[in-house]
Amino acid sequence: MEHELKGFIKKCDIAIKQEDFDTLMNYYTDDAILVIKPGMIARGKEEIKTAFIKIAKYFNNRLVPTQGEMIVLEAGDTALVISETLLEADKNDNEYSMDRRATYVFKRGPQGEWLCAIDNSYGTDLINK
Amino acid sequence: MEHELKGFIKKCDIAIKQEDFDTLMNYYTDDAILVIKPGMIARGKEEIKTAFIKIAKYFNNRLVPTQGEMIVLEAGDTALVISETLLEADKNDNEYSMDRRATYVFKRGPQGEWLCAIDNSYGTDLINK
Repeated sequence: MEHELKGFIKKCDIAIKQEDFDTLMNYYTDDAILVIKPGMIARGKEEIKTAFIKIAKYFNNRLVPTQGEMIVLEAGDTALVISETLLEADKNDNEYSMDRRATYVFKRGPQGEWLCAIDNSYGTDLINK
Repeated sequence: MEHELKGFIKKCDIAIKQEDFDTLMNYYTDDAILVIKPGMIARGKEEIKTAFIKIAKYFNNRLVPTQGEMIVLEAGDTALVISETLLEADKNDNEYSMDRRATYVFKRGPQGEWLCAIDNSYGTDLINK
């Protein structure tokens, strides 16, 4: 059976594709962080939303994230997801196609629902290769 | 200033080197998980302690973990640490020297202290390269 976090991440990806960032922010914890790029971090929903708006614009409003292979490591109310994240901005332009091994940390919210606490699409590439 | 989690992880590494697994278990949450190897997971302190005893034996009781470059991504009571983990079992035998890009998830315990919830030294290598 597919882990519930796979469906959750799919909802996040659809919200990003549709640029529905208000809905997207419902999927983050209040003190969540997003790694915009190595060394640059957005903290909290307001900064994360602003970052997503800028990222969408940077990719000419054509950013489509999808997930390939995914492994969910669940420990009580916390989960680490290792995921092959594909970012496509324009299928005719290879420059805008990125294949990353991302690390996402989720925790259960007040109603037991999963929320994203740490969104790091760069995975372990944040340290020297 | 060095992040407090760097000192915490150093204490874990010393406990592993000294094979002081009772002390080591104080650094994990009750429902923590350890990725023993891809596809094999230890759940809870009892299984994790047993796994560390077997790992120590496998490496002829000479396993010495140390950390190189490290990045701490902290979001409220949760943190993801990306770390260059060096595992040495015998300096004269290159076969037993491993250099990994690990992912560790920590959360704050009842007294505000950090505890390891997800111990995955394989990082994003759990999915196909």
